[in-house]
Formats: sequence, C-alpha cells, structure tokens
Amino acid sequence: MTVRVAVAGASGYAGGELLRLLVQHPRVEIGALTAGSNAGQRLGALQPALRPLADRVLEPTTAEVLAGHDAVFLALPHGRSAELAGLLDDRTVIVDCGADFRLVDAAAWQRWYDTPHAGTWPYGLPELPGARERLRGARRIAVPGCYPTAVTLALAPAYAAGLVEPEAVVVAATGTSGAGKALKPHLLGSEVMGSMSPYGVGGVHRHTPEMAQNLSAAAGRPVSVSFTPTLAPMSRGILATSSAKALPGLTPDRLRETYEKAYADEPFVDLLPPGQWPSTAAVHGSNSVLLQVAHDPDAGRAVVVSAVDNLTKGTAGGAVQSMNLALGLPEELGLPTIGVAP
Amino acid sequence: MTVRVAVAGASGYAGGELLRLLVQHPRVEIGALTAGSNAGQRLGALQPALRPLADRVLEPTTAEVLAGHDAVFLALPHGRSAELAGLLDDRTVIVDCGADFRLVDAAAWQRWYDTPHAGTWPYGLPELPGARERLRGARRIAVPGCYPTAVTLALAPAYAAGLVEPEAVVVAATGTSGAGKALKPHLLGSEVMGSMSPYGVGGVHRHTPEMAQNLSAAAGRPVSVSFTPTLAPMSRGILATSSAKALPGLTPDRLRETYEKAYADEPFVDLLPPGQWPSTAAVHGSNSVLLQVAHDPDAGRAVVVSAVDNLTKGTAGGAVQSMNLALGLPEELGLPTIGVAP
Amino acid sequence: MTVRVAVAGASGYAGGELLRLLVQHPRVEIGALTAGSNAGQRLGALQPALRPLADRVLEPTTAEVLAGHDAVFLALPHGRSAELAGLLDDRTVIVDCGADFRLVDAAAWQRWYDTPHAGTWPYGLPELPGARERLRGARRIAVPGCYPTAVTLALAPAYAAGLVEPEAVVVAATGTSGAGKALKPHLLGSEVMGSMSPYGVGGVHRHTPEMAQNLSAAAGRPVSVSFTPTLAPMSRGILATSSAKALPGLTPDRLRETYEKAYADEPFVDLLPPGQWPSTAAVHGSNSVLLQVAHDPDAGRAVVVSAVDNLTKGTAGGAVQSMNLALGLPEELGLPTIGVAP
Amino acid sequence: MTVRVAVAGASGYAGGELLRLLVQHPRVEIGALTAGSNAGQRLGALQPALRPLADRVLEPTTAEVLAGHDAVFLALPHGRSAELAGLLDDRTVIVDCGADFRLVDAAAWQRWYDTPHAGTWPYGLPELPGARERLRGARRIAVPGCYPTAVTLALAPAYAAGLVEPEAVVVAATGTSGAGKALKPHLLGSEVMGSMSPYGVGGVHRHTPEMAQNLSAAAGRPVSVSFTPTLAPMSRGILATSSAKALPGLTPDRLRETYEKAYADEPFVDLLPPGQWPSTAAVHGSNSVLLQVAHDPDAGRAVVVSAVDNLTKGTAGGAVQSMNLALGLPEELGLPTIGVAP
Repeated sequence: MTVRVAVAGASGYAGGELLRLLVQHPRVEIGALTAGSNAGQRLGALQPALRPLADRVLEPTTAEVLAGHDAVFLALPHGRSAELAGLLDDRTVIVDCGADFRLVDAAAWQRWYDTPHAGTWPYGLPELPGARERLRGARRIAVPGCYPTAVTLALAPAYAAGLVEPEAVVVAATGTSGAGKALKPHLLGSEVMGSMSPYGVGGVHRHTPEMAQNLSAAAGRPVSVSFTPTLAPMSRGILATSSAKALPGLTPDRLRETYEKAYADEPFVDLLPPGQWPSTAAVHGSNSVLLQVAHDPDAGRAVVVSAVDNLTKGTAGGAVQSMNLALGLPEELGLPTIGVAP
Repeated sequence: MTVRVAVAGASGYAGGELLRLLVQHPRVEIGALTAGSNAGQRLGALQPALRPLADRVLEPTTAEVLAGHDAVFLALPHGRSAELAGLLDDRTVIVDCGADFRLVDAAAWQRWYDTPHAGTWPYGLPELPGARERLRGARRIAVPGCYPTAVTLALAPAYAAGLVEPEAVVVAATGTSGAGKALKPHLLGSEVMGSMSPYGVGGVHRHTPEMAQNLSAAAGRPVSVSFTPTLAPMSRGILATSSAKALPGLTPDRLRETYEKAYADEPFVDLLPPGQWPSTAAVHGSNSVLLQVAHDPDAGRAVVVSAVDNLTKGTAGGAVQSMNLALGLPEELGLPTIGVAP
Repeated sequence: MTVRVAVAGASGYAGGELLRLLVQHPRVEIGALTAGSNAGQRLGALQPALRPLADRVLEPTTAEVLAGHDAVFLALPHGRSAELAGLLDDRTVIVDCGADFRLVDAAAWQRWYDTPHAGTWPYGLPELPGARERLRGARRIAVPGCYPTAVTLALAPAYAAGLVEPEAVVVAATGTSGAGKALKPHLLGSEVMGSMSPYGVGGVHRHTPEMAQNLSAAAGRPVSVSFTPTLAPMSRGILATSSAKALPGLTPDRLRETYEKAYADEPFVDLLPPGQWPSTAAVHGSNSVLLQVAHDPDAGRAVVVSAVDNLTKGTAGGAVQSMNLALGLPEELGLPTIGVAP
Repeated sequence: MTVRVAVAGASGYAGGELLRLLVQHPRVEIGALTAGSNAGQRLGALQPALRPLADRVLEPTTAEVLAGHDAVFLALPHGRSAELAGLLDDRTVIVDCGADFRLVDAAAWQRWYDTPHAGTWPYGLPELPGARERLRGARRIAVPGCYPTAVTLALAPAYAAGLVEPEAVVVAATGTSGAGKALKPHLLGSEVMGSMSPYGVGGVHRHTPEMAQNLSAAAGRPVSVSFTPTLAPMSRGILATSSAKALPGLTPDRLRETYEKAYADEPFVDLLPPGQWPSTAAVHGSNSVLLQVAHDPDAGRAVVVSAVDNLTKGTAGGAVQSMNLALGLPEELGLPTIGVAP
C-alpha cells in the first residue's frame, strides 16, 4: 500500500524538505505539488537539489488541486491553512506546518497573531505524553514550530518531574532557512556570513506562547518563557540553551535519570552520554534531537541544550512522523536518524 | 539476501560517509568497523551524526578483523591498502578508497608517490565506457579520487567525441572535508571560514595523473591537465571548472548534444537545462553529479562546470555504487540523488 | 613621542590582532616579537595578513628579549604571565591578555585554575566605574576575558542601578578564534562550518567567576551567573544574550535611560536606537561594543544583547585601550570604531 | 589641508567600504552622502558597522547635492555615472566605481552593455605602466572592476615580458558582496552558505572585455580571456587562478624574476615567497594584492594565483588610491595593507 501525498508550498524551504523526505519514503507516492507565485514553474528551477522531481511543474494552491490525496502537507504563510482546510474533506489528512492551529488558547492566538482563532488541531509532537495516541488516526495535525520542538523536548521532562521553577530562560540560535526564502536584506549571504545577531528580543517572537503552552502542560501550572532567538551563519539547525532555576532536591543524578527515563523509548530523541554535547551538524538533515543536561550548583539552575535540524525534526520530519501515525504507518518510516556531517 | 560489510578507517570523514550510506542501504548489514589510533573508542564519540551506530566500538585495522565479510571498504592513508589487500582472499570484495591501485602506469605511480607500484584494480567510475562491465563481479575495486570524479565526468565526453584539444585546464574548489580530519593549522575553522586559498598549484596535486589517465583514455591520445585545486569555506562539495580549446567544428549545439547523449541513461549524472548552473549545495550528501556546458566563441573554448559532493559521489557514494555492481545488486541501491539543501 | 612595544605570543590570534592594531597606531613603534615553539620563524609565514611585518623573525619569549620596552603585551597561555612579570621592572608597562591577574579572590582563583593565586592587577575595562582612573599610569594591567567584556558591559549598568535580581543568565556565541590556534579536532573547519555547539555547560567555563566578580562589584552584593558558551560558525565575534529577573519598578523607559546614561560618554560603547539589534558583523575588527536592551513583561526579565569582536574589544583592542591610558596617550588612539562589514 | 569628499550610493556595499576607508583617511572630511531609494534614512540603519556616521542622513543623488566637493565617488548602477558626470564641473574629481568609462573601444562597450558609449576616463589601476602618471592630477577616474583588478595584476607582467601565449584562462571565486545588496534569491544566506556555484559561464561576464583590454595592452597584441566567475560562501574576497600557455624559453626562474621586478616598488602588490600561497583572508579589508606564480612543465603553462578584497583593492581601496594621486596626496594614505584575519 502506498499513500498519495500532496505538498502545498513546494517551492519554499519547508516544502523542499518535505519533498526530500517524501520522495525517499518507502510508502509514499508524490501527488500534486503547488505554489503561490511560483505556480507554473519547473520544480527543478526552484529546488535544484530535488533531482528526481526536477521536471514536475508546480500547480496553483487550490482546494481542487489538493483534493483527493491521502495526505496534504501545508507549508504556507500563516492564515492560509485555515482557509484551505475548510475546503478539504476528512478523507484527506491535513498536516499543517503553519501556526494556525497550534495554540489552544484563543485569546493567546488573538494577542500574538491579531486575527481570529481558527481552532486547535492535535499537536504533532508525538514525544509528549498522550500525543502519540491522539495522532494515531488523526485527520488534522498542527505541526509544532521549529523552536518549540527544540525547547519543549528540552524542558518538558524537567517540568513534568517537578524539578525546576516555572520560569524558563531560553536562548536559541537558528540557521537562516528558519526565516524562509523571503527576500529581506538581513537574510542576504553577505549580511549573514560571519555574523550572529538576535531578533525578536524581549519576548516578542510568536513561538513564545507555543513554548509556554507546552511547558505549562508538562508542569501542570503556568510556565513563563523568556525567549531570545538569534540568527547564526549556517543554513540549517537550531541549538537551544534552555534553563530554569532548580527546585530543592534537584541533583545531577536525578536530573539525568529524569531525562533517561523520559526518552528511553523515543526513536528520535537522544540524551547524549555525559561529557558529549549536541551540535547542529550531527543532526543536519536528520530527524533526531540531541540533548544534554547539566546542573549548575553555583547558579542553582538546570541547563538543557538541544540540537535539531529546523527543517527536518523542526518542521518536515516532524510532519512526516505525524503523518505516519495518522495513516497507521510505522512512526519511523522514511525518517533518517543520521546527520549529513561533516 | 543481505551482504555483510566492513569499513576500515571508520573514524575518518570517508569512513563516516561510507557508514551513513551503508546503514541506510536496504541490503547491507554492518560488520566490523576499524580504526588506527582510535581503535577501542565508541563510534559515537568520533562520528556523532551516526546515531544508530553510536555504541559500536572500533576495532584495530587488521586482516583478521576484516576477513570473512562480503565486502570491505578501505578508507585508509595511501600505502595501507596494498598491504591489507594481500591478506584478504577473493571471497571478499575489496573497495579501496585510497590511491594505491588507481594508476595504470607504474612509472607515473613511482613519480607521483615515490613508492613501488602495487598494481592496478578495476576503476570504480561506472559511467566510463566499459567500466560498468568490468565492475560487475569484480573482486577488487579502486575508487576514483574526488577531483578526478568531478573532472573526468566533466570532460570525458568532449574528448571521446573529439571536440577539444588535448590540453585541459581545470580549476576546482573543494570543501575542507576533502583534506580529511588531519590536525593541520590551515584546516582550522578560524583559517578556513571567510577564505579561499589554492594549494598544490603548478600541477603538483597527486590527482593530476589520474585525471590525465582518464581523459587520455577517452581521447585516445595523451591529454595534459593543468590542475589548480583551491580550498573553499564549506565542509563538503567540489565545484570544478574544466575547459579546453575547441577544435574546428565545435558548436554550442554539438557540445550540448554530445553531453546529452553521453549521460542520457546515467542515473547519477545530470546535464542541467540551458541557463541553470550546478551548485555544490544541490548535491550535498547526494550521489548525483550536476553538469553544465558552455561554448565561449571569443576565447575559443568549451567550458564544463561540474558539482559533486566530494564525500558522496566523490568517495563513499562512488564506492557503494561500485560495490553494488561487484556484488550483483542494483547499481542505484542505497544511493540518494537528492541533496540536503539549503 | 612614540612608545616602543613588544608582543609576547605574536604567532597566536591575540598576538596577531595586537600587531594589527599596533602597526596602525600612530604613536607606537613595534619592538620585539616573541613566540614559543614558533620562535625563529618569519612572521609572514604565520600571520600572512600582517604584510608590513612579514619579514620580522620571531624571538624566544624571555625576559631578556622583552626588557627595555615601554610596554609589553603578553598573549600567552595561563600561568606564563606571572612568571615573566616578576622578571620585568616597573619601567615597562605589562599588559597581560591572560587570566592570571584578573581575579581578586585568591580562593576563587585556586578553585577555578587549581594553581596558587599570582595576585590581582588593575582590571583593563575602562568603562567600569573608577577603572579609568586606576588605569591611568598603571604599570601592570589585567586585560578582561572576551566573554566578561561582552557580559559585564551588558549587565553592569542594570546591577549598578539596582534594576534586576542578582541571578544573571547568560548564553553567548563566540567565533572560533576565541579558542585560539590549538590543533583540536572540534576546531577543524569541517567540524565548525554549518554547526553550532555548546561547551563548558553548567557553569564550568573559567570566565564565569570573572563575570560574577564584575557584576557583584556593580551590584554591591553577590551576583551569580549561569553561563553557557557556544561555538558559532564564524571566525570572530561574540554575541551575548544576558538577562536577569526584573525587580519591582523596572520599566522599559527606566531600563533604556539607565543604559543611555551609563554609556553616554563612552567612545567604545553604543546603545543602539530602539528597534535596531547588535550583530557581530558590525563590530568585526572594531573596538566598539553594540548593545540593545529589552524588557520582557511576560517573563518579567530585562534582556541585554551585546556584540563585540572577541579579538578586538574582547582582547587586543581592550589591551591597547588600557595601554593608552597607562602611558598617558589619548584613550581612543589607534582603535577603530568601524567594523569591516559585510 | 583636508579634502571634502562626497559618496553617491552610500547605502550599498561599495559605498559602505568607501566610507570605512574615508572616515579613517587622515586628510579627508566627509561631505554629502547620497542614495537612491534609501534617501532620507539614517546611515546607521543601513550600514551598522559605520558607527561614527550612524546619525548622518542620506540625501538624494543629485548633481546639486554632489557639487562643490573636492572629490565625488560614484558607487552607482551602470549608466548613472555618465549622466551625473556631465553635471559636475572640473573642480571636482569624479571617481567612478561603475563600468561606464572603463572601456576604450566603443564597439566593445556597445556589444557588452548595449547602450551608447559614454567615453573613456583614465583607468584607476596605478600599478599599470604609465597609469600612475595619468592619474596624477586627473579630474575623472574610472575605477577598475574587481575581477579585472585581480586578473590584470596577475597576468600583465607575464604578457608585458612576452612569456605566455595570448590566450588566458581565468577561473575566479568571489565573495557575495561582489554581487551587491540586490535582493535576489540566489544571494540569500541559505543558498550561499555551504555552496559554490558558477555564473556567467562561457565568456558572458561583463568584466571579460575589460580584462582583455588590459592584457592586450600589456602584451601589445590581442589577448583573449576565457573567464569563469564563481560565487563562494564568504562575504568578501576574490581568489583568481589565471593561466596561459608558456612560450618557449619560460622557466620558473624567469617567471619569478619577472614578477619580482614588476612589483618590487609597488606598495600594494606582494609576490609571496616561494611555497606560500595567497588567501583572501589575508587581504580581508586590506588594499593589498597577494600573488604567487608557478610554472607547470607537464601542462606547459604559467599559473598565477591572486587574492584581493573585492571591496577594498577591488573597488573602494583602489578608488581612494586613485583619488590620492589625483589630488596630489601620498598614494598610500588611508589605505591599510593589513588584513583583518582570522
């Protein structure tokens, strides 16, 4: 059995990564590929790395084109997904890589996006308690943001185990593909190479409420997140440093055991051996998440560093993982756990 | 049926890339992994991207350890392969990623390597005329050098068709992984980033006689190669610009048709559509070779630009492709043609 | 009047940057240049960018060679400075780029460096209250570490003004030159490019007590620092994200005014206009520090992002600035405030 | 005496580099700064590295604004210079960084630019025979292109000495700033990092006729140039590999002596010692050109590798050098010969 899959937004970075994985997925047949202003172009001109699909021509992103597939991936600007979703029936699994259906709290959505809340879909982070069950057979899936993937997996176990105070501090570096293919001056190679810079400082990045939502759920009480994203001179990868004040009783051993236990059976989350640290290179193109934990007794904090590929586990790989669950396929199918390094 | 495969030199960059491909190869079972000074270490500490093999421990590189496999890949310093090969019987296919058995001319070997010539093995570039047949069922294979792969595929069709004069000029840029993991000051990140520099200028790089050998065979007469390798600020990839003076009768159409015909049925060589140029990003981690040709009427030259991943098609991917042929497996098995980009 | 200056450790990155600045300093004459294992070599072979000094030959690092200069810069491994300093008399200003004399607390030194404390010299960060006065005419100067420069200037005003709680959280990214020219596998270009990774997580980096010392002095009470350094794929630059919990009464305006006032007259510290963020590119090769502040009301924290060039203001530029003060020269002499960008 | 200088096109990369040099030039006072669509903006928002000019506001690029300066630098798109030049009188030295006045042959201009030829101005490469004299006191100067600077200095001595055949083959890598600040998809950081790609292959780059013009003048007969430019993952720098077939009588010694003699007195051109090779890092931000020569006896070619900073000696530094000559200032004034490395 193969499943027929469409990708809306196939000319962007998330769309390209979806296709890289889907072409190599043993149970997937590639259906419609759509784009906005790039409709009508050969995919080979826009995604030169996708050799096997070079001669495919992009269609416009309409419900007609997307209808009739077993699954449709939406890699579209925020706001487009809600619109399209209403036009596709439930025989098609919709996996939305955008933000539209991630937040549970309509007021939070309204505050951060300043548009009406479209609703909430099952959240595509199978590693969270209960999530895997909700994703099995789901017809609608909200893929997590790239930063929230890296940060939630880093801190949720500590919050679930009651080890740390409900005030997280997160500083993360992302590769430039996280900002998409938009033609903005600060994303030019000349500006980016040899330079680190922050953006969205002071808690204004829209991934902040998503992280807070996840960590609050893990903690069973409200958790605030001080989040500073930075742009690093690399194409891919997120390295997140997440920390929180230790509650009494936290020891290095208890911290480590908590994470060992939390991820013992997870195929895509690896707590590294003591002394080894995550790097984004080690997950380049891979669906793995690498973690390391430390207890800083002087500062009284637990520190967790996580590395993900923002396009793979952070977007397209996470999306395919959820699609596998929704369609009853083995969860790990078509998802590499080996990074392309060096 | 699966084949059991060993990798000698598993802690280096070529060894790591071999393992990345072999772990994901549907018909391969990983056998012994060996190293020199790194023997005894966990692979996970040396190749952090190879998550599924993280707990494997490296054994010493000896004939005893390597014996009994269906195939053994040698990713060793020059000179070691000849030695080991003599100790392994013919039930094991030996795929040598080193230079020891590439050159046909013993005098050329002696001149460039200053050691006795160990012999000549079937040359692992299936795209050359007759090579595929020689590789089917071969027990010993000499994997081409990374630069010769990029340059031979770029110029052999023009020479075979008699389109250009027998004096090639090649300037190529390589990612730093081409220089291996050796701890040399000029390979430090601080030196490499933001910088281009040449090395081995004036025809002294040891890949020069290998290119000359291949192009001479294609031309049916001696071809000289002026080769300048340069080091580029990237981890992977070779971009080679190869040119030669046009012989009378060369037209843009004839040039293009020659390449279209030469590679029409090749699964790993893509002549790009007119107007599109190769980039190393598009073949990052892929076994594809991207080519584009141009005729410069003012300068009277044919120019061919080729992009390969030096570690994939340029080394480990080419090696696996040849192993597939030697063991009677489908040639394309386990070899991605999609680059990890951006 | 010109001053005659020697540089010990001229073959390393700090030594090279010192020479870049000193050669272009209008009042400096370059005297002895010394090295350890590189003594006897032409500087041109080791520091190819220092064209005007290419033919200078490195001498061994001994007190005899260094004696008799108006100023001697020590860019040596930790532990060497104390030794040499004892052999040079007070007619020579010694500017030590190493850590030996930075810490005031002998017990802290003993704990972090596990050797006897050599003493404490005037601290070469003129922007700190009272520091400029102490540096004028000083004969011995301890140049701050690169991270402490970036972090102290970022947080000291907030602590001095009593705006935040005494628990700082700092995550900083550095270019690879911060790790020096040591031949370590993780510093190879192939490992570094395209990758972010942390090191010294959990409060074990030796710059931590220096930051705590500076911020505690500013606050007038003990301040703890949770510090996570990360290695970024660039040669130069530090981007530090420093934050602390806001004390009651902190407002965005008060935060901004505090920094405007603190640095209004500082030639090398620039608080950027609202909405503009620091980047390391903007201070590449420059002695400037760029700062931006933000108040995150949801997380209840003040966040300060600072960018410095780790080799310029973070080491050699800071050292020359202090030398200027010590020798009675204008503080800004020979110190660029323009970055080489893009 | 100071000279008052305006920069038209101050928001681009060439304009920014001009300002970096001019602010630090001991005899220059910065006058009007103009821009096209960026007129009205603070320079600090567009050129964050130019701290001392951060509060300057850009004026529109008109003859009125530019009039009355001792020198005006034009860093404008092709075609604009001719227009403006006609409106400025001869009391103002005009230094044009664009192509409009570089070519002598009106037919060549017409062929390559498809617009009427505006004329020919003294060519701002003082190192060419007779050029220095022509530039002294000149009122109009055409600054060479970045590639022609690197390639002309590399090959002119060999042609002047009659050592090589009149068919040059050039492959050069440039940093992305060579392509300017234009918002084009292939210039995004995500596309550029980790990737090498060619452009303008087959002799179509507009710098080709300029190189041919210069080399033909040196040779005293027509020289053709096969030129392939490539884009490298770095912000700045050009590494050019230029070669030509050796004429009888060429020996390594004669080749070397020719270059030693040609550049013995040139302050900005350095022939490196045997065994040392140019790198773009060594000239980052510097006005120096580094050269090395080699004779390849097997291929029968002379090979010259040159490194320049495309923005400094390749554009803005060369422009200031020519301005110095035109205004009777010391040629080397304000021009660094030290690169910012690592």
